[in-house]
Amino acid sequence: MEYMNDGQNYIVRIDKDENLFEKLIEFAKKENLTSGHISGIGALKDVELGFYHLDKLEYHKKKFTDDYELLGLEGNLSHMDGEPFFHIHATLGDSEFKAFGGHVFDATVAVTCEVNFRVFDELVERKLNSCIGLKHLELRRI
Amino acid sequence: MEYMNDGQNYIVRIDKDENLFEKLIEFAKKENLTSGHISGIGALKDVELGFYHLDKLEYHKKKFTDDYELLGLEGNLSHMDGEPFFHIHATLGDSEFKAFGGHVFDATVAVTCEVNFRVFDELVERKLNSCIGLKHLELRRI
Amino acid sequence: MEYMNDGQNYIVRIDKDENLFEKLIEFAKKENLTSGHISGIGALKDVELGFYHLDKLEYHKKKFTDDYELLGLEGNLSHMDGEPFFHIHATLGDSEFKAFGGHVFDATVAVTCEVNFRVFDELVERKLNSCIGLKHLELRRI
Repeated sequence: MEYMNDGQNYIVRIDKDENLFEKLIEFAKKENLTSGHISGIGALKDVELGFYHLDKLEYHKKKFTDDYELLGLEGNLSHMDGEPFFHIHATLGDSEFKAFGGHVFDATVAVTCEVNFRVFDELVERKLNSCIGLKHLELRRI
Repeated sequence: MEYMNDGQNYIVRIDKDENLFEKLIEFAKKENLTSGHISGIGALKDVELGFYHLDKLEYHKKKFTDDYELLGLEGNLSHMDGEPFFHIHATLGDSEFKAFGGHVFDATVAVTCEVNFRVFDELVERKLNSCIGLKHLELRRI
Repeated sequence: MEYMNDGQNYIVRIDKDENLFEKLIEFAKKENLTSGHISGIGALKDVELGFYHLDKLEYHKKKFTDDYELLGLEGNLSHMDGEPFFHIHATLGDSEFKAFGGHVFDATVAVTCEVNFRVFDELVERKLNSCIGLKHLELRRI
């Protein structure tokens, strides 16, 4: 991993065989980042995706073990239980160019991963919402 | 819906059973936003997508009635006929992780929807371009 | 093509029948942009996509000749061999709303293409990394 910033914007490169979440958490801790917007492209492998079944309040998870183009990574950084937490969804493309995706639980970088991160200057926390069975973003109520 | 900003950047949470466009328009009007960049993730249901047939100058529309992971929402806010208008495309993932998508005409939030909005400080308007049969962005000609 | 900026943010409209990369490079050169984050939506045609085979260190390329909704374009601008270089991945949707995508080698705008560009104030360069057989982003090592 290498990264560079120009103030509020970071460009992060995560390298082949590095774990996506381990490196993003390392990046957030080193830079004392609490909240922000993340997007990116590259290639991933050993991806564990989830689909949330709202009727059962649980994720169905599936592992995808090939190499895939990362067509788009999108998400955010917030704090959950006092730790940085990245909520990331990804669209992946296989060797036949077919697209698939879901909530990303785990992934390893396959070739390179190029991430844009925009700092959000307020602390955003996640707290349990029992209606959806998940910790959602706590923002100022309007 | 709840939202928070740190100046030019907003994080918006739209909740289960809330209409995506109704809430985004409410957000834009309350904050007097005229233009900007929107992206996000979450889950959607009752999604009406469109594919534009340029030869007929019309959209083919289709409704998707299950719950879907919102792999990526991407678009912009501009003004059209004096009102805020969100132009949004979405990539969705079904329970088998297959991806599909199009121009979003309508959608309801299924679990939660987490949106990043970046204010653009100039008013951007849409005006009819008869060659494409759509109101496109009017920007400074170069 | 038309574009407008409010400082660090640009909105760019690329028009029907214009080449995506030709116009982006023209935009970057006219505005003296060296690095940044790009995202967008619209519609594309005559798209050449690539999937990188890491075992062979080469791209498998395929041309897609219909019109497609551009569900999401994501990428970055950096400098490679002294010239502006856009690294772009795209998720496309066909007339049946099925999604596909990959690394974009070439594309022509089909209806309109609406791009958001965020300037990165530091020069970012690409240099060959022989392990992956590609020119990856050179950022400050941590």
